[in-house]
Amino acid sequence: MIITLTTDFGLRDPYVGIMKGVILGIAPDVRIVDLTHDIHAHDIQEAAFHLASAYRFFPGGTIHVAVVDPGVGSDRRAVVCSVGGHIFVGPDNGVFELVLTPEALVYDITNEELFLLPVSDTFHGRDIFAPVAAHLACGVSLLSVGPAQSARPPVRPSARPRVLHIDRFGNVITSLRREDLLSTFRIHIQGHRISRLCRAYSEANPGEVIAIEGSTGYIELALNGASAAEFLKVGRGTRIELEPTGH
Amino acid sequence: MIITLTTDFGLRDPYVGIMKGVILGIAPDVRIVDLTHDIHAHDIQEAAFHLASAYRFFPGGTIHVAVVDPGVGSDRRAVVCSVGGHIFVGPDNGVFELVLTPEALVYDITNEELFLLPVSDTFHGRDIFAPVAAHLACGVSLLSVGPAQSARPPVRPSARPRVLHIDRFGNVITSLRREDLLSTFRIHIQGHRISRLCRAYSEANPGEVIAIEGSTGYIELALNGASAAEFLKVGRGTRIELEPTGH
Amino acid sequence: MIITLTTDFGLRDPYVGIMKGVILGIAPDVRIVDLTHDIHAHDIQEAAFHLASAYRFFPGGTIHVAVVDPGVGSDRRAVVCSVGGHIFVGPDNGVFELVLTPEALVYDITNEELFLLPVSDTFHGRDIFAPVAAHLACGVSLLSVGPAQSARPPVRPSARPRVLHIDRFGNVITSLRREDLLSTFRIHIQGHRISRLCRAYSEANPGEVIAIEGSTGYIELALNGASAAEFLKVGRGTRIELEPTGH
Repeated sequence: MIITLTTDFGLRDPYVGIMKGVILGIAPDVRIVDLTHDIHAHDIQEAAFHLASAYRFFPGGTIHVAVVDPGVGSDRRAVVCSVGGHIFVGPDNGVFELVLTPEALVYDITNEELFLLPVSDTFHGRDIFAPVAAHLACGVSLLSVGPAQSARPPVRPSARPRVLHIDRFGNVITSLRREDLLSTFRIHIQGHRISRLCRAYSEANPGEVIAIEGSTGYIELALNGASAAEFLKVGRGTRIELEPTGH
Repeated sequence: MIITLTTDFGLRDPYVGIMKGVILGIAPDVRIVDLTHDIHAHDIQEAAFHLASAYRFFPGGTIHVAVVDPGVGSDRRAVVCSVGGHIFVGPDNGVFELVLTPEALVYDITNEELFLLPVSDTFHGRDIFAPVAAHLACGVSLLSVGPAQSARPPVRPSARPRVLHIDRFGNVITSLRREDLLSTFRIHIQGHRISRLCRAYSEANPGEVIAIEGSTGYIELALNGASAAEFLKVGRGTRIELEPTGH
Repeated sequence: MIITLTTDFGLRDPYVGIMKGVILGIAPDVRIVDLTHDIHAHDIQEAAFHLASAYRFFPGGTIHVAVVDPGVGSDRRAVVCSVGGHIFVGPDNGVFELVLTPEALVYDITNEELFLLPVSDTFHGRDIFAPVAAHLACGVSLLSVGPAQSARPPVRPSARPRVLHIDRFGNVITSLRREDLLSTFRIHIQGHRISRLCRAYSEANPGEVIAIEGSTGYIELALNGASAAEFLKVGRGTRIELEPTGH
């Protein structure tokens, strides 16, 4: 059984290690994989993007814990979600919006027998999410964590095209998908126009920004061997216009 | 069996990976958890703080290896400590001061049969601490690592209240504990006064610095949604005055 | 069975976590160890240096995956190399040059049955190298990955002495080896001269730069308690002159 962890804790403090200690104390045989702990502090949307990109590369039954939790200690709810054979555990603040489908089963976490007591007001990753995930990995049923929420339509991200993320190489990951692009198109961003969809970074001419279907399934803007983000002077959230051009 | 690792090696160089290779070569089934590798270079006190905050969230029997070791290659001693069901392995330079109690058993590491030979003068994490921890995880007895030190009083940290640590969110972790605070009090730091103890970050008014009992058991100074450390202009080591106020 | 990972992906994005998900989906019992993910983007030589320093501390049979792959999506080849009881998996771009010997067996990776399909043009770490390594860990034979390359002499790094790496403490790792140094010598670098070989950092006088045989087997230039790289004003690639002096 695998548990993945996604947080905004960073790796300088031992918070992530502490969560692993709690998990292994309950479920000694579970495998723990870090997705990322470098989410910008309190950036729920960034965590949602990374989770949606990554979760489907894990085997069915994997439990994904996300702790980006600006409302910790307030009355925000904590949830376990079951969708497509994967389990998600974390605060009910939108961090799972990109993975939830209408078929998702969502349970409020209320069963204190599964918690590390006494529960702090500042670190539910340690006191609630880690131990609940570990108990689930040990075979505790979803029904035992708390009452099922009535069906709800998943919240959809904004439909306006924008930059979702800049990766380490300066590639600009957009919210556009391949099916959004007609056979001929122009992407307008910060006064630049991109109209060529390539299969590999190496197809780009020197200095040319190309569009490419990235490994996440989203359309990326890329420069071969250089940072497209720096060249285009764009960042997370920059607006994009998509212009169909045609014959 | 679990081994945790705390070092000032960072993750850019493969030193931590090398220690894991040595451990898994001896103890293939051990679970290895990183506490942190971002201790400031040679900052023994910071490592001591993080170890003390984290170790008790691991199950009994866990072996905690700490390698913050400015004296490597000199005649500083290497030790294994057994305290409260946990085992600590590292240099005898104060890194375990916050976890040692008068009941702790402390052994000098001298048995070269447990080392990776030849022992270098620069990397005892790889050549001594990793293999000794791995052998302990395999069931080698504490007595076999070397002679027991005679009982010694653990060194206590300075009693003057101060800032121990700034966490990633800018929360200011102090050396004060909840029991140090009377029902009414004033904390003075850099010309600011804090007099309200809250249960959750979200109880703070906009722009108000509050005191809160953090997840480490120490009193933290916090601003809701912003960096208290930046606002107060404080850093690790800043002095604090605690003024009891009362009726 | 152990798989190590060396990449230039960083830990901010979930790429490394995704590779681990793919590996554990195929080989649930394999142990995964990170060597480093902070290789400078596309710096094949740096990755080669770290791999060569680290691999021999892992038990025989370990599979080392390296993904520093500026040519991904082009026609560069992908290879599995068997040398000295260790297995290396990655692009055929020089990243294994420092570990290959004339006895190495090198196989082109061509068997698509071992891939995660469809193979992207941008992320062979996920689609080719991770699943091939996982299948090898499960016992798939080297012969099944693809045709053996005919014997080839391994490429040797440049013989001109230079700085290979600056570590976190500012130690300057050079391409010199102990056997390059006569009993008396002078190392010239950026106008400084170093002529004393010590066994431990602590033997250096205050302000003195010494030579020391580092844990990697290369000669390092070091200052006790300070950054030799800052003091000498050198960086990766700086040239070194070695002058034999002597009697």
